[in-house]
Amino acid sequence: MYIDVKPLYTQIRSELLKRIEKLRREPKLVVVTYKPDSSTISYLRSQEKSAKRFGLDYEIIEGKTPQHVIKLLRSFSDDEEIDGIFVTHPLPDVDEMEVFENLDPRKDIEGRHPYNLGMLAYGEEFFAPCTAEAVIKILESYTEIIGKNVVIVGRSNTVGKPLSLMLLRRDRSATVTVCHTKTKNLSEFTKKADIVVAAAGRPELITKEMVKENAVVIDVGINVTENGIVGDVAKEVSDIAKVTPVPGGVGKITTVLLMEHLVKAAERINF
Amino acid sequence: MYIDVKPLYTQIRSELLKRIEKLRREPKLVVVTYKPDSSTISYLRSQEKSAKRFGLDYEIIEGKTPQHVIKLLRSFSDDEEIDGIFVTHPLPDVDEMEVFENLDPRKDIEGRHPYNLGMLAYGEEFFAPCTAEAVIKILESYTEIIGKNVVIVGRSNTVGKPLSLMLLRRDRSATVTVCHTKTKNLSEFTKKADIVVAAAGRPELITKEMVKENAVVIDVGINVTENGIVGDVAKEVSDIAKVTPVPGGVGKITTVLLMEHLVKAAERINF
Repeated sequence: MYIDVKPLYTQIRSELLKRIEKLRREPKLVVVTYKPDSSTISYLRSQEKSAKRFGLDYEIIEGKTPQHVIKLLRSFSDDEEIDGIFVTHPLPDVDEMEVFENLDPRKDIEGRHPYNLGMLAYGEEFFAPCTAEAVIKILESYTEIIGKNVVIVGRSNTVGKPLSLMLLRRDRSATVTVCHTKTKNLSEFTKKADIVVAAAGRPELITKEMVKENAVVIDVGINVTENGIVGDVAKEVSDIAKVTPVPGGVGKITTVLLMEHLVKAAERINF
Repeated sequence: MYIDVKPLYTQIRSELLKRIEKLRREPKLVVVTYKPDSSTISYLRSQEKSAKRFGLDYEIIEGKTPQHVIKLLRSFSDDEEIDGIFVTHPLPDVDEMEVFENLDPRKDIEGRHPYNLGMLAYGEEFFAPCTAEAVIKILESYTEIIGKNVVIVGRSNTVGKPLSLMLLRRDRSATVTVCHTKTKNLSEFTKKADIVVAAAGRPELITKEMVKENAVVIDVGINVTENGIVGDVAKEVSDIAKVTPVPGGVGKITTVLLMEHLVKAAERINF
């Protein structure tokens, strides 16, 4: 069985449109990039379309040198006309810590800044990483979380780690295990899970034998293969469990949440 | 069997004394408190002794009002004569988030500031919470961590959550589960663990039946009971597993690490 995220998407989208109407001016998102590769460029193109669809102001600026990138970040952080800053990553030759030192966490709509990550431990999710937040929204709209055994496969800073902090929050109170490439007997963990979050970036890593019947499986993977885009979860898993589709699952919610974050940032600056 | 942390303590202490000798002036720690209760006062007294033993400058300042506390934090954050700031907590009527907004994370020797917590996700442990760091130091000095199944019982911001991030760092790469009061069948998790970290604050919560033979058990608990101070791990567990003692285990390392953090802060400001 597949989990249909469209009702959730529609709900987030319509609430967001109402909030945008109330703003005094168009929220502005600036993307800072440096020597973007082809996949970054195609990602930004789809992001731009999505921003325009919501009537949001969107601009891509390419730094000339690593130093210039840092200078741009500092000036955009101070610029009251700019509500959100999106930094493509990894940026070649640019130190990630220096990026954070020059990026105002109040404009970090991706939720990658250490300050925003640390706030998750305190249960404050003003800017959580959009993908982790998408997983939470899907779970909260679909199933009970308290006391559930959740196994996350993958320990990234955009999904695995922040998601584990978010699932431990008292109003969610899942028991959380984070597995990764060094985990021995991965299937022993996943087989016992009520909820599996596959965020390893490995095509069809999670197979039918690894999942308990009727489990909820959130597929965060977006892997480009010879057979097109596939998730981290094998198709057959949907025979016995409830799985989010790829594409059209977590990614769909993630994109709209990035826009929601921009609006949130604009609401804070404008009012 | 009990784990002897004394060799580790001696090593940290002697390296620290060498670093203190090299500093141009005594590192200065300021404690900010507000309406401290008796247990806070007795804790600060033992902290002061420990600071004096290392020849560190130590001062306790009590705020007059919540607003005054915030003002003190701001002024100590800006004061170049002060290397580290310790805020007792919880502070009655003082908003924790406001504390963080006015505390320079470079002086947050406790590692409680969201910025420092978030840095743990990036593998940067300049100021990790001292107790979580003590657990890491003990484990690293005593056993292999990579690929081990680690179960943490307790999800606090000073132990459970930061420790899980630290154990996931690539050079440690443990599989990490965080359990807590809402976990169903706690012993099913702990029984399978190679390493159990008991940080729930519940006297003798972990019993012999809950632990695998020869497991490593780190007892973070310091519970004041009618029978004196006891940990989160029942005495009998040491019959079958390797357990850190309470007192004289994690707490002993935690105290010296707080001093180490102060020296680290002073090194950064002085050089």
